[in-house]
Amino acid sequence: MSVSIGDVERAAARIAGRVRRTPVLEVSPGLFLKLEGTQHAGSFKTRGGFNRALSAGRLPETGLIAASGGNHGLAVAYVARSLGVRAEIFVPTVASPVKVEGLRALGAVVTQTGAVYAEAYEASAKRAGETGALDVHAYDQAEVVAGQGTVGLEVLEQTGGVDTVLVAVGGGGLIAGIVAAVAGRARVVAVEPELIPTMHRALAAGGPVGVEVGGVAADALGASRLGDIAYEIAGAADVHSVLVPDEAIVEARRELWRTCRVAAEYAGATAYAALMTGAYTPAPGERVAVVVCGANTDPATLV
Amino acid sequence: MSVSIGDVERAAARIAGRVRRTPVLEVSPGLFLKLEGTQHAGSFKTRGGFNRALSAGRLPETGLIAASGGNHGLAVAYVARSLGVRAEIFVPTVASPVKVEGLRALGAVVTQTGAVYAEAYEASAKRAGETGALDVHAYDQAEVVAGQGTVGLEVLEQTGGVDTVLVAVGGGGLIAGIVAAVAGRARVVAVEPELIPTMHRALAAGGPVGVEVGGVAADALGASRLGDIAYEIAGAADVHSVLVPDEAIVEARRELWRTCRVAAEYAGATAYAALMTGAYTPAPGERVAVVVCGANTDPATLV
Repeated sequence: MSVSIGDVERAAARIAGRVRRTPVLEVSPGLFLKLEGTQHAGSFKTRGGFNRALSAGRLPETGLIAASGGNHGLAVAYVARSLGVRAEIFVPTVASPVKVEGLRALGAVVTQTGAVYAEAYEASAKRAGETGALDVHAYDQAEVVAGQGTVGLEVLEQTGGVDTVLVAVGGGGLIAGIVAAVAGRARVVAVEPELIPTMHRALAAGGPVGVEVGGVAADALGASRLGDIAYEIAGAADVHSVLVPDEAIVEARRELWRTCRVAAEYAGATAYAALMTGAYTPAPGERVAVVVCGANTDPATLV
Repeated sequence: MSVSIGDVERAAARIAGRVRRTPVLEVSPGLFLKLEGTQHAGSFKTRGGFNRALSAGRLPETGLIAASGGNHGLAVAYVARSLGVRAEIFVPTVASPVKVEGLRALGAVVTQTGAVYAEAYEASAKRAGETGALDVHAYDQAEVVAGQGTVGLEVLEQTGGVDTVLVAVGGGGLIAGIVAAVAGRARVVAVEPELIPTMHRALAAGGPVGVEVGGVAADALGASRLGDIAYEIAGAADVHSVLVPDEAIVEARRELWRTCRVAAEYAGATAYAALMTGAYTPAPGERVAVVVCGANTDPATLV
């Protein structure tokens, strides 16, 4: 595996004290929510960002550069500010105004370009070549994947162990890290919107393929192709992949607010939606953790 | 003390499995938020409600009855529904529409009467006399206080110990329970809006006195007089009492959302406000827990 549990453990040690050990809420007996929306900058992405930056040794004068549907950009901007370096962030035009505003508030230089993530990424890669800034990929870098995997280590520690972890998938950085972290100790279920099935299609096709990007969670899960690292790790681990319709994501997000007062963005509610639709039905007594991966959302839309 | 740590420990055993062990978020090293807004029905009140009902033995045919600024009513309605009995709730006219709507959604019979809590309470007491329903007081009953105190036990367990717990005060049920729970292990600071200083005035006057009720947190902290149990317990424990202006409560609530994606109602942000204004300034290295006691709020107003 290109990212091992050892890599995740080293990442955990490297980023300790810089990221929050986000809390776990046991909603009902054996059902746990990992509240990663309470992380600095509002999503798990901060973990991977710190691990990438802190693995690089001395950072270039030009700081960090990233392309992002939004959350990754916020995280990289937060990491840069924490480490006292510059951040330049390229975001696709579908990024939510809340996130773009947040990026600027964190002091990042923001460029909105391209209809989808892939186009924003191309622009950022070109720019990185010109400036020498350290590029922090949104999902397809070993250090980023190892950082995200620390979510999985914490879930096992905080719950005393679970049988299953449900995780939403965009480019696959989070799920790849979690699979590496919990390998042999819990199974991982990939949950995707029907409208952005990057992993579902990749597993069916025997490798990452381009998909259309759309629906309510596109601003955070809108990668048009699964990452190579995610495919390699998830494919080898025989990850179970399920899809949920947008209506279920909308309803799951409302339910998280209504019953738990947990704020989640659409991507953050996607994994929970699989329980509501029955796309994944736990066996009696099965212990399940659901990663609520982000909360960068307009709270007015929670009800 | 009219409520002992033994009472709180027995309450914890009695209500286990019926209430959530709400999570704790370590915001920065040594600063912990107890996220009691994620409790069933959105606030700590569910703890006291269950402890009162489950201490009563067989419940009357007419079920539970309560008067409440809102959160307590929601909690009693939730408890009644869980236990399969009726709930009748009297709320003052200042209760937020969100809470009244929530009460009805939980199946409670709701009567809005009286400008302040005390008037709603009188009406409920009269009605309880007629129907024989079990009255669940919002704060001034030993079983209720013992139930709320389970928050304090959990804070000590989940943090590995703190020096100080900051708690908002209305009628004083929560702070009384927490003082009983952590006595000798942590100090407790009472935080109140300047516009509803029930405890501050009681400590100054040598006993509970009537106060005017107003400001942003009146729908949840709007008791016009500290409870006798709270006075007895807090007075004996020499609780430190501080006040915060409404503007600081508003700002603290925004800050909890902005930096932690934690939803809090105004009452829920009141204790945190004391840190922001300097009404309470922790010493270097002091470990502090802040109880975010409720989240029954319109999320559109979080930003």
